[in-house]
Amino acid sequence: MQRGINTAAKEKVIFMADEKIVMAHGGGGVKMHELIHNHILSKLSNPFLNSLSDSAVLNIGSKRICFTTDGFVVWPLEFPGGDIGKLAVCGTVNDLAVMGAVPLALSLSLIIEEGFDLAVIDRIMTSIAETAKLAGVNVVTGDTKVIERARGDGLTITTSGIGILPDGVDLNINKICAGDVIIFSGNIAEHGLAIMSAREGLAFKTTIKTDAAPLNLLTKDLIGAGLNIKFMRDPTRSGLAGVLADIVEAINLSVEVVEADIPITPAARHAAELLGLDPLTIANEGKCVIVVSQADAEKVLAICKKNPLGKDAAIIAKVVDKKPAIIELKTRAGGRRLIQRPYGEELPRIC
Amino acid sequence: MQRGINTAAKEKVIFMADEKIVMAHGGGGVKMHELIHNHILSKLSNPFLNSLSDSAVLNIGSKRICFTTDGFVVWPLEFPGGDIGKLAVCGTVNDLAVMGAVPLALSLSLIIEEGFDLAVIDRIMTSIAETAKLAGVNVVTGDTKVIERARGDGLTITTSGIGILPDGVDLNINKICAGDVIIFSGNIAEHGLAIMSAREGLAFKTTIKTDAAPLNLLTKDLIGAGLNIKFMRDPTRSGLAGVLADIVEAINLSVEVVEADIPITPAARHAAELLGLDPLTIANEGKCVIVVSQADAEKVLAICKKNPLGKDAAIIAKVVDKKPAIIELKTRAGGRRLIQRPYGEELPRIC
Repeated sequence: MQRGINTAAKEKVIFMADEKIVMAHGGGGVKMHELIHNHILSKLSNPFLNSLSDSAVLNIGSKRICFTTDGFVVWPLEFPGGDIGKLAVCGTVNDLAVMGAVPLALSLSLIIEEGFDLAVIDRIMTSIAETAKLAGVNVVTGDTKVIERARGDGLTITTSGIGILPDGVDLNINKICAGDVIIFSGNIAEHGLAIMSAREGLAFKTTIKTDAAPLNLLTKDLIGAGLNIKFMRDPTRSGLAGVLADIVEAINLSVEVVEADIPITPAARHAAELLGLDPLTIANEGKCVIVVSQADAEKVLAICKKNPLGKDAAIIAKVVDKKPAIIELKTRAGGRRLIQRPYGEELPRIC
Repeated sequence: MQRGINTAAKEKVIFMADEKIVMAHGGGGVKMHELIHNHILSKLSNPFLNSLSDSAVLNIGSKRICFTTDGFVVWPLEFPGGDIGKLAVCGTVNDLAVMGAVPLALSLSLIIEEGFDLAVIDRIMTSIAETAKLAGVNVVTGDTKVIERARGDGLTITTSGIGILPDGVDLNINKICAGDVIIFSGNIAEHGLAIMSAREGLAFKTTIKTDAAPLNLLTKDLIGAGLNIKFMRDPTRSGLAGVLADIVEAINLSVEVVEADIPITPAARHAAELLGLDPLTIANEGKCVIVVSQADAEKVLAICKKNPLGKDAAIIAKVVDKKPAIIELKTRAGGRRLIQRPYGEELPRIC
């Protein structure tokens, strides 16, 4: 599902008469918001789509399912710790998982460029199979198209997913209220930095690997515990900053973030500094923002820490009743600065 | 779902050590069969995917749903009678419809090239909205990615769909037996010829428009009538010849086709002749092959003829117990010739 533009639907959109698509239209920020609202939602409007949640919730008899889709155009196709196949499974599984759903089935659509190396297809299919097995989900249907040389981009993948929403589970950004606590499930910014390290022309060498992982292995523990979790979202394009902006826009309350509490490895911190990037805006592919009532925050944190995917989790922020609604970062240096939704994307083709 | 390679799973596949993807890998023929079986199914194998039917059937509580996906790389994006948007809705709706399912919801994944004209996005989104409305289905979830200029191909779309399978409906190619009758729901080859007419460099001018249409508007009448329909499939890539090859391979019986009975307009026939193409191998996007017991054939035909989408329907072939299993065409000239699954695709980028 569209990420990082979630509740911005409630903002007044100023129509900008762009005539051409620019890279920022895909970046998860303000420009993407414009594209989605002015050119897509305005045509396809319906209550399911308009909610812009991670997955649409559909009733099937007495059951509820979640349905989601994600296109993957990451470049390069293979990078430290993963490839486009791992990403394509994790991205869609995670959109189901953060709704509290149990992933049931995936579809896989491949668009392959003429001249593409079959050995790479083989490696990526193996990666898809391994990641799907780890997540406990099958690829049940697929499609393959071939596009002429120099018209395609090697390989793009679109996965869609169906998950079963357990009875009683109803996470919703609008349930968040003042006093709620925001947990981040682990070290920040690793997917984006892994892509940068793999991309030619960037001058730093690092051992940072993608964090891409199927989050249902963590969220099933959280959902099963019966705690007062309000909302979850995986911060991909536009990073943690984007998800915090979604929250602030949806509920019109402020969020106070403590920089020193945000889990980050020294390697990632230094790499981001070297590149002049804010780790808060860098994509993650195996991490989760969890908003929980204050009363249950320590319990949720303890469940996270027991799980390999949440072992570095930390309480990073709280929701406060301050107007105007802003995201305020208490910096390591003792200062305060505002966090805003990125305009476009600091690095394109991240997922 | 993968088209035109359906039951070829049962054939012995001779592994050809291609190192690179060629256009024929996407054509719905023998080469595509190799790609799917040797490089995709071999890795992702599971009973749902291995069936290679138009949609996977999943149990949700006491209900059954169909789940399918299709990528669209058609070029040009706009052509007589339609565009990639109309095609993306019809293609996925039709994969559900031919299973006998009632389409419930679609997902929409867009991959757009930097520099793409927003006015074209607007036209294609309008087309998607209109076609979805006609089909009675909502686009409930979506994703948008932007790819750098000259790395993408303008716009590619992947749609996935969920449909509800009514109780008791169980169409299956393996139910087909000798004596069954094969109906084609209307005039053949119009989608493929419309694309050719729109593509630069082809020297003929014609008024042939794509036949792209949501087949659920026809199949709901057929499914609702309680007749002994065995199997349906929409013949897209590799055309009617591909679907007949699927049938023959699945059931190991022969099919006898009467050329003079295949509905085709004079314009389409002449255009195909001019291009030296066999109409039987040209793609359709709003037509359906229906296999029905002999006893119910006239009733099915009558239902088709009452429906605007089936008004030109005709009985075109029958299933006969002759070995070896072949597709035999009785030609207009009184001769007989064999029909085979196309090797690749006579025209790439058709859908």
